[in-house]
Amino acid sequence: MPLLVVGSIALDSIETPHGKTEECLGGSAVYFSYAAHFFSNVRLVGVVGKDFPHNLKKIIHQKKNIDATGVQELEGKTFRWKGAYKGDMNVAETISVELNVFGEFKPVIPENFKDSKFIFLANGGPSLQKSVLDQIHSPHFTVVDTMNHWIKDQRNELLELIKDVDAIVLNDGEARLLTQETNLIKAGKMILKLGPKFVIIKKGEHGSILMSAKGYFIIPAYPTEYVKDPTGAGDSFAGGMMGYLAKTRDTSLQNLKRAIMYGTIVASFNIEDFSLNRFQQITFEDIESRVREFEEMLR
Amino acid sequence: MPLLVVGSIALDSIETPHGKTEECLGGSAVYFSYAAHFFSNVRLVGVVGKDFPHNLKKIIHQKKNIDATGVQELEGKTFRWKGAYKGDMNVAETISVELNVFGEFKPVIPENFKDSKFIFLANGGPSLQKSVLDQIHSPHFTVVDTMNHWIKDQRNELLELIKDVDAIVLNDGEARLLTQETNLIKAGKMILKLGPKFVIIKKGEHGSILMSAKGYFIIPAYPTEYVKDPTGAGDSFAGGMMGYLAKTRDTSLQNLKRAIMYGTIVASFNIEDFSLNRFQQITFEDIESRVREFEEMLR
Repeated sequence: MPLLVVGSIALDSIETPHGKTEECLGGSAVYFSYAAHFFSNVRLVGVVGKDFPHNLKKIIHQKKNIDATGVQELEGKTFRWKGAYKGDMNVAETISVELNVFGEFKPVIPENFKDSKFIFLANGGPSLQKSVLDQIHSPHFTVVDTMNHWIKDQRNELLELIKDVDAIVLNDGEARLLTQETNLIKAGKMILKLGPKFVIIKKGEHGSILMSAKGYFIIPAYPTEYVKDPTGAGDSFAGGMMGYLAKTRDTSLQNLKRAIMYGTIVASFNIEDFSLNRFQQITFEDIESRVREFEEMLR
Repeated sequence: MPLLVVGSIALDSIETPHGKTEECLGGSAVYFSYAAHFFSNVRLVGVVGKDFPHNLKKIIHQKKNIDATGVQELEGKTFRWKGAYKGDMNVAETISVELNVFGEFKPVIPENFKDSKFIFLANGGPSLQKSVLDQIHSPHFTVVDTMNHWIKDQRNELLELIKDVDAIVLNDGEARLLTQETNLIKAGKMILKLGPKFVIIKKGEHGSILMSAKGYFIIPAYPTEYVKDPTGAGDSFAGGMMGYLAKTRDTSLQNLKRAIMYGTIVASFNIEDFSLNRFQQITFEDIESRVREFEEMLR
């Protein structure tokens, strides 16, 4: 089933203990699309500036099952993020953010994308996310991501938005901020009461928790030995998860558990190198093989 | 098979966001014994001072499958620890430590304990831990715990000790300190090279990792909703694990995985209340029932 993502396309400059990059391809919608394309066709909506490099444009457009015709090009500069990871690499330190054209982004969903059934609203303002949903004819499964900034500054808009979504993904810090509750299970229960049928709390290298009225599912992260750059892990997780859901057309709790297993493994590849480098090297078979290995570790 | 623990017996004064206690019963050997006694007979060796309260003495001696005849009583005061937990409660802040009689503790293993097969050397100086091992006739499965202090100040003694043990349990921070490696999987592999057949890295509320030459096993923590006091979680985990091993008399990788599942669940009960309060309320059936529930969450 058609899968749509709306989010950022960025030029990332990143420093980790294992190296650094300058203006490499990043952004939530990009990581999501590449993670999901192993499973399903993806429709990508985002915005770049006139300065967006030709070679990166090629990367976005090269995969035959990523439809990037929804990427607008606006006068101005592309969104840039500069960050660094230190110590145990769980938390990025933002050095600078230039929103540029992403700051004025008003997503216009192309006519032929409006019948999308699986919708991922990558991190962005809740009003912008709402405006996307309003353009979709009849979404089947909508997942929303958010971040501290929106929880603090646009709380009411966010609460309004998540009333009607199927799932929300957020990290542990965001779950605590949203609920003012430090215990994650209590926090997850509180978020379920806000509307979403599923709450997915990502705990970085510690895995994730899926909560629903019917029960919980907890899954550790794959114990990656070579974490080179954690950027995009959350969006890759979401991309693998939703790609799997869209492929299997099954949004039961049981299948969502399986989807989260796939999301976990796809994210584990992404963090082994900068930008999309690992996604450019691996195949669906590599993902399947690591899923089997991981299942062995959990048995 | 007989299970021996040598470690501290303490009077703990603890403050958490959910309450506080004054001089309640604690200490690594105590938590371990109570956790293990659900599965197996336990032989407890430790030391208290003349001031050790009669009612707490009764608690140590009341369980018919905890043999506390190895508890020495020395002139002087009992070991005291005062600590506090804040925020997400993963890390204790030590307010004060009075070693008292535990500072001069020279474990004497009673004659009828020397045929013990399963040995847990709770956190203590590596020389003291070694002196225990030297008194045991033919240990079958020895597990050692340690802490930052010994890793920093008695590194050589510790390395000497762990050469010959079957397993070491340590938390993520200790694993990193011991190896100077931030990636836990790499750290675990390095520790395996130091001698132990199994390395068990505890990640608090994020679960634990078992590593051996034959493979890894990762298990999240049980998602406890009511964490009242995390004190003793690590020792309860070890107690549940070794109690299960001693009961089943099987130290294969496969059974160790199962033992870690039990350790995880036993620890999840312990942290729901102060001191041994939860252990005083629950039965083996409560443990079995939560194990089944947890298996459901992991499926």
